[in-house]
Amino acid sequence: MPKVSNRGTIMPASPIRRLVKYAEEARARGIKVYTLNIGQPDIPTPEVAFETLRNIDRKVLEYSPSEGLRSLRVKLQQYYKRFNIDVDVDDIIVTTGGSEAVLFAFMACLDPGDEIIVPEPAYANYMAFAISAGAKIVTVPSTIDDGFQLPPVEKFKALITERTKGILICNPNNPTGYLYTMKEMMQLRDLVKEHDLFLFSDEVYREFCYTGAPYISAFHLPDIEEQVVLIDSVSKRYNECGIRIGALITKNPELKKNVMKFCQARLSPPLIGQLIAEASIDTPADYMLATYNEYVERRKFLVDRINMIPGCYTPIPMGAFYTVVRLPVEDADDFCRWCLTDFNYNGETVFMAPASGFYVTPGLGKDEVRMAYVLEREELGKAMVVLAKALEQYPHRKKLF
Amino acid sequence: MPKVSNRGTIMPASPIRRLVKYAEEARARGIKVYTLNIGQPDIPTPEVAFETLRNIDRKVLEYSPSEGLRSLRVKLQQYYKRFNIDVDVDDIIVTTGGSEAVLFAFMACLDPGDEIIVPEPAYANYMAFAISAGAKIVTVPSTIDDGFQLPPVEKFKALITERTKGILICNPNNPTGYLYTMKEMMQLRDLVKEHDLFLFSDEVYREFCYTGAPYISAFHLPDIEEQVVLIDSVSKRYNECGIRIGALITKNPELKKNVMKFCQARLSPPLIGQLIAEASIDTPADYMLATYNEYVERRKFLVDRINMIPGCYTPIPMGAFYTVVRLPVEDADDFCRWCLTDFNYNGETVFMAPASGFYVTPGLGKDEVRMAYVLEREELGKAMVVLAKALEQYPHRKKLF
Repeated sequence: MPKVSNRGTIMPASPIRRLVKYAEEARARGIKVYTLNIGQPDIPTPEVAFETLRNIDRKVLEYSPSEGLRSLRVKLQQYYKRFNIDVDVDDIIVTTGGSEAVLFAFMACLDPGDEIIVPEPAYANYMAFAISAGAKIVTVPSTIDDGFQLPPVEKFKALITERTKGILICNPNNPTGYLYTMKEMMQLRDLVKEHDLFLFSDEVYREFCYTGAPYISAFHLPDIEEQVVLIDSVSKRYNECGIRIGALITKNPELKKNVMKFCQARLSPPLIGQLIAEASIDTPADYMLATYNEYVERRKFLVDRINMIPGCYTPIPMGAFYTVVRLPVEDADDFCRWCLTDFNYNGETVFMAPASGFYVTPGLGKDEVRMAYVLEREELGKAMVVLAKALEQYPHRKKLF
Repeated sequence: MPKVSNRGTIMPASPIRRLVKYAEEARARGIKVYTLNIGQPDIPTPEVAFETLRNIDRKVLEYSPSEGLRSLRVKLQQYYKRFNIDVDVDDIIVTTGGSEAVLFAFMACLDPGDEIIVPEPAYANYMAFAISAGAKIVTVPSTIDDGFQLPPVEKFKALITERTKGILICNPNNPTGYLYTMKEMMQLRDLVKEHDLFLFSDEVYREFCYTGAPYISAFHLPDIEEQVVLIDSVSKRYNECGIRIGALITKNPELKKNVMKFCQARLSPPLIGQLIAEASIDTPADYMLATYNEYVERRKFLVDRINMIPGCYTPIPMGAFYTVVRLPVEDADDFCRWCLTDFNYNGETVFMAPASGFYVTPGLGKDEVRMAYVLEREELGKAMVVLAKALEQYPHRKKLF
C-alpha cells in the first residue's frame, strides 16, 4: 500500500475534534450538552441573506471570476472605508472563507522552511495551514496572568532568523479576546519594517470590540502598507459561517500576482455565497447593533459567572466572542473529556475547548479552556452552574488552598 | 520589501488567462467573441437547484460538517451505485469543488519532492496543485495522431523512481475528450498494483460518454481499491460550476484520516452549494438526457466542421465536452492572440484555448488548441466560419502543400 503524506500525519488533530464524538455519545444518552466549544453563533443570519436566496434570478449558476465578483469587491471596499481602511477594489481578493485567505497568504508568501512568528495561544488552524505550506510557525507565549497582551517585542526579535518571513496576529484575538493597543501595533509595525517582514493580520472579529479602545487595523500603520496581508471573512459579523466567503487584501503588486495564481487554480469562490455576502454588507444598522449589544451583555454575564466559581479565572476579553479561562485542574483536556463522558448534573453537561489546541509550546495552557459565548445568557448561566458542579465532582481537581 | 514565495512565482500563468484581457478588449471594440475557451456550459442549471434556493428554511447559515452534510453523502453514494461504483457513505468526503479534491488528494498523499506520472496534455490546474503541494508532475506524452489514447505502459514504467507515489488520469479526459478503454485501465491497474502507487482518477465528466464503449471507473478495477483516489464534482453534470461542490472518495482508512485533517483546517465546504448539489442528484432524467443529446449533436457538428477546414484536424472525442484540434499554424498561442487582437470577420472573432497550457513538455502541442463545445450549434457553426476566415488571413499560416 502506498504511504500517505507525512505532512498530513504530523498535522495535529484538534483536541476539540477529538471530543466531538464524546459530545455526540452524551447526547445519545439523553444528556443536554451546552456547546461553548466552537465559534458558531446562535444569532440568526440577517434577513437580507435569505431575501437574496429567494430572489436569485439566473439561468446558470456559473463560475465567477477567480478574484471574486467585482460588485462584491466594490461593496467590501466601501465597507472597509467605514473603518478607515483605504484600499482599492483591486487590492481585494475574494476567498472561500477566511480559511482560504490564510492558506493562500501562506502559499503565496512562504516557501518550505520559511518561518513566521505568532503569539500563542493562537487559532489552531494557522498551524495546519503552515504545515500545508511546509512553513514553520514559531511562537511567543502570551499569558493569562498578563491578560494575553502582546509579549515584549524583544521576544519576537530574539526569534528572527534568515528564514523569518512574517509576523501573524489575530486582532481582536481568537482564542483570547485580546484587542491589540496602538502602542503594541506600532511595536509590531517597527519590527516588520526593520526586518522586512510580512505582517499577516487576521481581523475577522473587527465588529466585535467592546471597550472604548479603538480597533487598530494593520492597514492603519504608517509606511508598511505593502507588507500587510489582511485576512477577512463575513462569517462572524453576519452569522453566515456556512457561506464560506472571506477575503485576502494586499497592496503589494508582486504578492497580488502570486495570490491570483492560487485563486485561478481553484477557479472561483462560491457564487451564491458571494451574492449573499454582497447583500449582507447592507445589513441594517439595527441588526448589527443588536448583535453587538447581545455580545456585550453575554460577555459581561459569562465573565462574571466564570470568575465567581472558586479557582476559575478569566481576564475580561476586549473583543471577539471568546475568552480563555483558567480552571482549577491539572489537565483541561482530561477535564473536558470527563465532563462529556463521566459527568452530568441533572442530565446536563458542558462542552468546552481545551486550550492546549491553541498553544504550540508543549505544556502551555494545560489548565486552560476556551469558551465561546455563542449561546443566550440563560443558557450560559445554566452552563456555568453545570461547570461549577463538574469542578466540585471532578476527581482530579486541584486543591485551592 | 519581503520576497513572495518562489512556489507562486514558478506556477505558470495559464495561456488562457493571458488572453482573457484581449477578449475583453475585443468586446470593448464591439466585436462579438465566440468563447470556445472554457468549460462553462450555456445550458441552464436544473430547476431543482433554484427551487432549493427559494425554499431554504433556516435561521442560521451555519458551518456544516468538515466532511460534508451526511444527507448529501448518502445521495452521492446512491448516485455512484448507478455506475456500479460501490462505496460507503464514509468513503465520500465533500470538497469545495473538484479543485479542492485534487488539492487535498495531493496534500494528503504527496510530500515535497514526491512524483506523480500524468499523461499529457492534461488539465492545467493539476500542475498548479502539484506545485502547491511541492510535488512534481512527470508526464508521458499522448499524441493527436494516436487519438490521445493511453501511451504504452512501458513509458510509464520507465519514469518510475523511488519518489513516484501515483498515476493521475482524467477520464473522460479534459482536454482531449478521450475515454480510456478497459484494456488501458487494466494496464494502469497492473502498474499501480505492481509498484504500490496511488491511482488518482478524475471522473467529473462520467455523464458525458458518447460511444458504445463503457465508462470504466478506477473503482471498477479489481484488487486496488485502497489505492484509488477518485475525484468528482457536480459542476459539469448539472451545469452548476459556481456552487463549488466536489468530492474526494477513498476506501483507504489512513488516507481518509489524512484528508480529514485538511478538511477540518478549512472548517467546511459551502453549505448552500451542498443543499443544491443534494437536490440536483434528483434532477429529472429528461433534463439529463436532453443535456446529453445536446452534447452529442454539438460534438458531431463541431468535429465535422473543424475537419472540413483545410489543414485542421481533430480526432472524434469520446467523452467530456472538449476536443483538441491541430491547426495549420506554427504557434497556436500567437494565432489565438491574433484572433482576438488583430482580426475580425464581419465584426466577429473566436476565443480558443492554446493547447500549450495543457502540456508540460516544452514545445509539445504548439500547433494545437482546445475547443469546448459549450455553445449552441448555430453559434458553433458561425464560430467555425470565423475560424476558417481567420486561418485564411493569418499571416503565419503554414503552407499546406
